[in-house]
Amino acid sequence: MIDKHQATLDAAVQALHGRTFFAAFPENPSPEIYGADADAQGRAAFAAMRDKQFTELLQGEPQAWVGQEESPYEQQPLGIKYPFYEPDALIANAQSAFAEWRRQKPALRAALLTEALEGVKSRFFDIAYATMHTTGQAFLMSFQASGPHAADRALEAIAAGYEEQTRFPEETRWEKPMGKYNLALNKTWRAVPKGLALVIGCSTFPTWNTVPGMFASLVTGNPTIIKPHPKAVLPIAIVVAEVQKVLAEHGLSPYICQLAVDADDRLITKDLAENPAIKLIDYTGSSQFGEYIEGLKGKTVFTEKTGVNSIILDSCDDLDKVAQNLAFSVSLYSGQMCTAPQNFFIPESGVKVGDTQVPYEEVVQKLAAAVTGLATNPKAAPHVFGAIQNPATHDRVKQLAFDGGRSILAHGTVDNPMFQNARTCSPSIHEVDASRVEQFSQELFGPIMLVIKTKDTNESIRLAAQLASEHGAISCGAYTTDPEVKEHIMDEMSMAGTPVSFNLTGGIYVNQNAGFSDFHVTGGNPAGNASFTNPEFVVKRFTWVGFREPA
Amino acid sequence: MIDKHQATLDAAVQALHGRTFFAAFPENPSPEIYGADADAQGRAAFAAMRDKQFTELLQGEPQAWVGQEESPYEQQPLGIKYPFYEPDALIANAQSAFAEWRRQKPALRAALLTEALEGVKSRFFDIAYATMHTTGQAFLMSFQASGPHAADRALEAIAAGYEEQTRFPEETRWEKPMGKYNLALNKTWRAVPKGLALVIGCSTFPTWNTVPGMFASLVTGNPTIIKPHPKAVLPIAIVVAEVQKVLAEHGLSPYICQLAVDADDRLITKDLAENPAIKLIDYTGSSQFGEYIEGLKGKTVFTEKTGVNSIILDSCDDLDKVAQNLAFSVSLYSGQMCTAPQNFFIPESGVKVGDTQVPYEEVVQKLAAAVTGLATNPKAAPHVFGAIQNPATHDRVKQLAFDGGRSILAHGTVDNPMFQNARTCSPSIHEVDASRVEQFSQELFGPIMLVIKTKDTNESIRLAAQLASEHGAISCGAYTTDPEVKEHIMDEMSMAGTPVSFNLTGGIYVNQNAGFSDFHVTGGNPAGNASFTNPEFVVKRFTWVGFREPA
Repeated sequence: MIDKHQATLDAAVQALHGRTFFAAFPENPSPEIYGADADAQGRAAFAAMRDKQFTELLQGEPQAWVGQEESPYEQQPLGIKYPFYEPDALIANAQSAFAEWRRQKPALRAALLTEALEGVKSRFFDIAYATMHTTGQAFLMSFQASGPHAADRALEAIAAGYEEQTRFPEETRWEKPMGKYNLALNKTWRAVPKGLALVIGCSTFPTWNTVPGMFASLVTGNPTIIKPHPKAVLPIAIVVAEVQKVLAEHGLSPYICQLAVDADDRLITKDLAENPAIKLIDYTGSSQFGEYIEGLKGKTVFTEKTGVNSIILDSCDDLDKVAQNLAFSVSLYSGQMCTAPQNFFIPESGVKVGDTQVPYEEVVQKLAAAVTGLATNPKAAPHVFGAIQNPATHDRVKQLAFDGGRSILAHGTVDNPMFQNARTCSPSIHEVDASRVEQFSQELFGPIMLVIKTKDTNESIRLAAQLASEHGAISCGAYTTDPEVKEHIMDEMSMAGTPVSFNLTGGIYVNQNAGFSDFHVTGGNPAGNASFTNPEFVVKRFTWVGFREPA
Repeated sequence: MIDKHQATLDAAVQALHGRTFFAAFPENPSPEIYGADADAQGRAAFAAMRDKQFTELLQGEPQAWVGQEESPYEQQPLGIKYPFYEPDALIANAQSAFAEWRRQKPALRAALLTEALEGVKSRFFDIAYATMHTTGQAFLMSFQASGPHAADRALEAIAAGYEEQTRFPEETRWEKPMGKYNLALNKTWRAVPKGLALVIGCSTFPTWNTVPGMFASLVTGNPTIIKPHPKAVLPIAIVVAEVQKVLAEHGLSPYICQLAVDADDRLITKDLAENPAIKLIDYTGSSQFGEYIEGLKGKTVFTEKTGVNSIILDSCDDLDKVAQNLAFSVSLYSGQMCTAPQNFFIPESGVKVGDTQVPYEEVVQKLAAAVTGLATNPKAAPHVFGAIQNPATHDRVKQLAFDGGRSILAHGTVDNPMFQNARTCSPSIHEVDASRVEQFSQELFGPIMLVIKTKDTNESIRLAAQLASEHGAISCGAYTTDPEVKEHIMDEMSMAGTPVSFNLTGGIYVNQNAGFSDFHVTGGNPAGNASFTNPEFVVKRFTWVGFREPA
């Protein structure tokens, strides 16, 4: 088992440190790679799961069957029912599996989890349709984000956890010269898991944001309970089922990794999170609930909350390309990505393009035109925008108004010929005043773009850094052809714990983060205290304990 | 500069991962190693500093001159006055130095700090006498713990910080195959320091417990303020002066590393700790103040608080050797070490020695006799026990009484021919009932030994693990010849985050921790949340931030 996956693990560890392009799971859902029937089979598998009980889990007889998912494309329930267990039962089950899981060597745990990812790979198309009809993502994003990209992020966490647990020797002989004789001790060390782990998922990226914490806790020996958002259960339920299958096949308790689903009339996240046996919590979601989680005593907590992402426009070579790139970033999955840009800082003197200065208003109109062009492109729009996961997001866009602000582009719908009933919304663009920081200092989740006219690029940088430091940011895009401005942005945004993408045009976007190369969230500002996957993300999940005895 | 120290750093990094014996600074204060006059010069240097202003610091004109140290050997003030600065002035100074310090490469910072340790080495004897006459440690421990052992722990922190900051590339080219073309990005990363750092020292180990956090924060680019205990300033003041000297020699601001001394009438620790600019705090001291520090919002905190250390006696080969070893552990520096054992769990059926069962009472009396033998040995006792740092520790021993308990050995004095006025105290031994957990569940700092009669070794293990989990423990000693009992102890104590020394006899003691080999404190129980020096101890001091741009 260890031998079977060692090459994959070694390559993944190496990729973590090279940070060049690496992907263990191909992102292209083509028949050549995944088989001629894979798409059709996935579509059929998803259809067959609807209006039925999800019976793949190995967690014993449930206390009820529950489910409340609905498709943003159909605005109809999926009808899938999941087994419900009381939090106390889930905790007791996890505790019963702790001893056997922590006694496995890290290398074996890593191999078993990598094996489970092979099973997940065989379900990529099932997961894609499950993601599409819970999150509203378009098919390609559903496939990539919930399938190969998530599996790569999971492998990244496995590799990081495996590496950290094997960075110090299991045993050594310590021999100290004392002049006439040597003092000799045999020493051994164990990477001791912290205890039970809980992973709390979100509704928009039900696997991508869940698997890093899940596999990081598992590889470090902590029995892990996965608590998905009640509106996006199926994608991660399939992943948990695949992990349980591998555990059972190798004679291990499936309780090492359990799915915890809310009852229809009762949310169980707080009961689980507050249980003293839960020592580790990974959380993705709103800042308000995230701060509650971070405030729990006696827990090690990893959060990805909300942030306010900025674009700084200073100078560029080709403003049309910049506008197209940014319009795509705002529109991709209708702005429902934690990495989507929101605040666009533009100097009142405009943007320098080559040798000419393009006036502020022209820049704003170019951005608006690019967004309109994308939203009304019948071929591209459905595949870019997808659907709106949560009706509340739609309502937010509709109700948005700023005292003293200016509406630059009104929201509309995005026609989707395949799903006439899809909940869609094209971006609204508002201009707000740079002095009214309270108007642009919170995340406005969804297809919302704010334009902020600044005195100059220095003010743009200052505001972007201040917002990131005080309210969090997960991404930042900057356009400048001036090396000094670039260094100024790097220094200020690095102090604000925010990665910066410079001068992106063409087929790469500020929202996109690559496993094994881009750290996702830095942990250095209020948008989250954790990072996929730096060493801190795994070392906090276990304790080094040493033993020694005269040799 | 980097070249000069690279071999030392490389060797230190290698030692961290080999965890075999390694010491960059010889612990033997012999004339052959440190020079024929080193001891006499150190003694003279210390004498010359008394009743004077300490003028080595490069922190500008002070607001006052303050000092309240006194020698536990003389029970007389040292009379040394240190420059006092208001917390706001210290913070402003540190902020003024932040930009220049964070812009240095990690390798240069590591080299400068290693250079500073060379300066510290030239002051080992000054520091030894300073330590002796502030902490009450005997000369040899003063030399070793505050000199070479502390310098090795500092180098360990430098090496760990250097390694973690250079584990990922500064730059790379990321190229993703897209079929007909490649997407290429140039990526760079920075290890961004968290901000200003504060290190709060303790009165018993003024350099050993301070330098790990100090050098870890410095090597990761954080300007650091050292706040010693007001009764033990001089040893670390010399270390800070040596760091400032190297900074100034290389054109850097001495404000990168400042000493903060309490005013005679006002403690400034809380003012510093609560200042929003302070992002990192290292703390050694009482649990009560430690919990206040851990509860501060917006700080990353590293603590070593108090614990209750246990000895589990099950079986051994030679009970006399065991008793001698344990008596030494209890007596070393009069029990004023955080690693000193306190609770001795002995089964009511006694201890198996070879093939015979030695009755409980005989084991207890052997331990008491060994302690008495050591305390009344005129040649050894002064060099083992030293003096009592704090009069309150002395009072605690005198006033100790347990409802329902039994006094086995009364405390006494330890004669010191060189210092007739030394504040000394030999250990008191009390038997307390295993059912009265509240009587032995807190740290009784000083020369106090509790004997607890248990039903059997299983109860001993259960109690030791429970105490460690609930109240903290930094060390554990266990004596057993049974491999199953040993594994049971390892599993239970590892879950309680407590390292275990098995079957120590002869010249190695449960209190002793070796740099580069033994992790000091695990971070896995209430005795502290940090560990010298595991990766977590350094990675939490900086943030990885990435930048990217089309190639």
